[in-house]
Amino acid sequence: MEADIVIRGCLVLTMGKIDVIERGLIAIKDGAIIYVGREDEAPNFKADEVIDGRGKIAMPGLINCHTHVAMTLFRGIAEDVELGVWLRETIWPLESKLKPDDVYYGALLGFIEMIKSGTTCSLDMYLYEDMVAKAAVESGIRCVLSSGIFDVGHKMLGKILLKKALSLVKRYHGGEKGRIYVMLGPHAVYTCSLDTLRKVSEEATKHNIGIHIHLAESEEETINIKETHGKSEVELLNEVGLLRSNLVAAHCIHLSSEDISLMAKNNVKVVYNPVSNMKLSSGIPRVKDLLDAGLIVGLGTDGPASNNCLDMFETMKVAALLQKALYRDPRVLPARKVVEMATIDGAKVLGLNNIIGSIEVGKRADIILIDVNKPHLTPLHNVYATLVYSARGGDVDTVIIDGRIVMRGRMIKTVDEYEVMRRAAEVSQDLLSRKGLKEIFLRILTKK
Amino acid sequence: MEADIVIRGCLVLTMGKIDVIERGLIAIKDGAIIYVGREDEAPNFKADEVIDGRGKIAMPGLINCHTHVAMTLFRGIAEDVELGVWLRETIWPLESKLKPDDVYYGALLGFIEMIKSGTTCSLDMYLYEDMVAKAAVESGIRCVLSSGIFDVGHKMLGKILLKKALSLVKRYHGGEKGRIYVMLGPHAVYTCSLDTLRKVSEEATKHNIGIHIHLAESEEETINIKETHGKSEVELLNEVGLLRSNLVAAHCIHLSSEDISLMAKNNVKVVYNPVSNMKLSSGIPRVKDLLDAGLIVGLGTDGPASNNCLDMFETMKVAALLQKALYRDPRVLPARKVVEMATIDGAKVLGLNNIIGSIEVGKRADIILIDVNKPHLTPLHNVYATLVYSARGGDVDTVIIDGRIVMRGRMIKTVDEYEVMRRAAEVSQDLLSRKGLKEIFLRILTKK
Repeated sequence: MEADIVIRGCLVLTMGKIDVIERGLIAIKDGAIIYVGREDEAPNFKADEVIDGRGKIAMPGLINCHTHVAMTLFRGIAEDVELGVWLRETIWPLESKLKPDDVYYGALLGFIEMIKSGTTCSLDMYLYEDMVAKAAVESGIRCVLSSGIFDVGHKMLGKILLKKALSLVKRYHGGEKGRIYVMLGPHAVYTCSLDTLRKVSEEATKHNIGIHIHLAESEEETINIKETHGKSEVELLNEVGLLRSNLVAAHCIHLSSEDISLMAKNNVKVVYNPVSNMKLSSGIPRVKDLLDAGLIVGLGTDGPASNNCLDMFETMKVAALLQKALYRDPRVLPARKVVEMATIDGAKVLGLNNIIGSIEVGKRADIILIDVNKPHLTPLHNVYATLVYSARGGDVDTVIIDGRIVMRGRMIKTVDEYEVMRRAAEVSQDLLSRKGLKEIFLRILTKK
Repeated sequence: MEADIVIRGCLVLTMGKIDVIERGLIAIKDGAIIYVGREDEAPNFKADEVIDGRGKIAMPGLINCHTHVAMTLFRGIAEDVELGVWLRETIWPLESKLKPDDVYYGALLGFIEMIKSGTTCSLDMYLYEDMVAKAAVESGIRCVLSSGIFDVGHKMLGKILLKKALSLVKRYHGGEKGRIYVMLGPHAVYTCSLDTLRKVSEEATKHNIGIHIHLAESEEETINIKETHGKSEVELLNEVGLLRSNLVAAHCIHLSSEDISLMAKNNVKVVYNPVSNMKLSSGIPRVKDLLDAGLIVGLGTDGPASNNCLDMFETMKVAALLQKALYRDPRVLPARKVVEMATIDGAKVLGLNNIIGSIEVGKRADIILIDVNKPHLTPLHNVYATLVYSARGGDVDTVIIDGRIVMRGRMIKTVDEYEVMRRAAEVSQDLLSRKGLKEIFLRILTKK
């Protein structure tokens, strides 16, 4: 049989119906998986490219369900400060000075970091999202894009941003033969009027596309909404018709049990961002309760400015640790469930589980190979525990996305990573020097 | 001037009186630092070995203040189970079957992992600690050893183990020209009788050496002690004369404010093990309160069976994240303080701050070089934030311990790491097959 790529001799974690295949073989043709099973039972494949998978784990690429990838540019600029200071005195002033090219280089840098740490698909929300799209196309990553929509009381702003978001849908949704998708991205209940949220709801229905939103991230926000509207954020989302199965809600920290029930009833998708939640002291989502209610929960890094990295292996570990600490029970969120959240459940969150999230025949080939011949991964008694508690992004050796080898032997094949690093550092430095920003940063950077 | 090693052109984080040197030079002779400062102001050194430090951060090697290094062998064996099950049904039965050679290979594997992730010194407590000493000597790491002492009601056992511990002192304390030190290691208040603790106190005074103990790790333990003795663990330690400035107490989670005051009054040293505390759901130490009381706090990974790695970069990040989450304040434990805890404060905890913990003239040369020319470390706006929130063990390029290059370009120079990995995996597998263990593990491994 003919194939484009064959991976031989690896331990395969399918995350599908079969659990683990010890000496496995995976065959890929035209971007799709055409065989996965034991090597000694496999047909004889003729392949253009044969990858020696011995001493490696093959698993589905990790799915980062919530990030703002271009925020790599802000990494390390305002650290260990209060959320209000962070947002109002740093992030928002910086974002107001952003140019499209900055976003392009910031996103490209972030996508390289993602690929190098085993992420093959991410859900993004940001400004100049067409530049993020361009970077996604070039880097070879699979991406769901959402152009941030907010109005903060300015009706016209909401209209303009929604229009922009719809033009992104038209231009990119389903692009690159189904490697790029688009959702609508109303930023949050507290930054959008009900009118704007309603319009988003209508357009999402009309175009049959998903919606990505921040939900119940800060306690202050949820209290303010309740005081203003007499209802919770979840109830308001229900009222405007956004509480639906293709709504992807990031954070979900400050929820009542009624909110959780309402979300579960409507099959809303949740993204848990443990590192960012801890770093910004936003509170801790009760993920066990969300799962027990029947909700599907994926994992996200959030933007690299509140993390400060995009390594989903780290996120997997912290995701498990934080829930164990919260519930005071080491059995909560076991390793296998965490790997599911980072792969097949993440695919469900994005509505892409028919094409990615597991290594199964017929799915697109988003596959990573992890080199386990390392001191910190020895001995290998439990593959799930090794992946969640001992492995890290740097252990990923090879990354295949949509059947294309985008990294091999830790070398990025699609773009010049050193050139991207150089340009991203340059635009980041230039951004800081733009008019009016100096005063703000001098104040923050000189704080102890 | 003559030197053995010169490192040129690096950004130096001294963690001493000078903060950051942008284009720095470090000169090393006979294991000691003889110059640190700006490269353009440095004398002209003739050196046997010149290391190009451009694009790298030089900083003091990280100090892991609490581990059981040989437990690498158990990594991944019992995961996501209750503490009681973990200890009584897995760890203790396994330990009862351990042979000296197992400990040797387990420790050597762990020391390699430590060096590869930038740790240059650790405080260890375990069985067959002479085998850990042997592995420390061979790997080139700096180490403080403590041979575990406990009696759990068997008076003779306490005597035998104390005798063993004292013979370790005689054999290794100050060995390898001051690279190996020994402390006495009474396991915990709940595993030692007051009589044994008193004898440990006397011997520690007699030999003028430090003491390492687990303190207030589990809530159950502290409640039981209070019920049995009518006193807290800290009060009991005070009673037996162990509450002193060279007592290194790991965990310190379940303490009253009276306990904290008493510890601060006696200048006890504390070790914070955030990853292990979360993974075992032991509770969260109130580190801000401990620091506010004036206590010196170092960082530890704890044993790799409850972590499951020895990466101090990860521990630095989780250390900061967990305190921010606990106090609901992102300003708590800022990046710079965390780097101090992992270097100079760690040295103070071990009583070795006169020889290690900072890059200063006269100190021993325990130095690591971090390669920052990587996507996830770009841009570099804030060196402390980059080290704590973005860097990881795999970014360490070169490790110098006591003036000897033990790793360069990520290659270990002292031992054959692949051979050690092979042997450690073998003994670990063999250990599991020993009589009586199969039944226990079948039960645990088949649990979901």
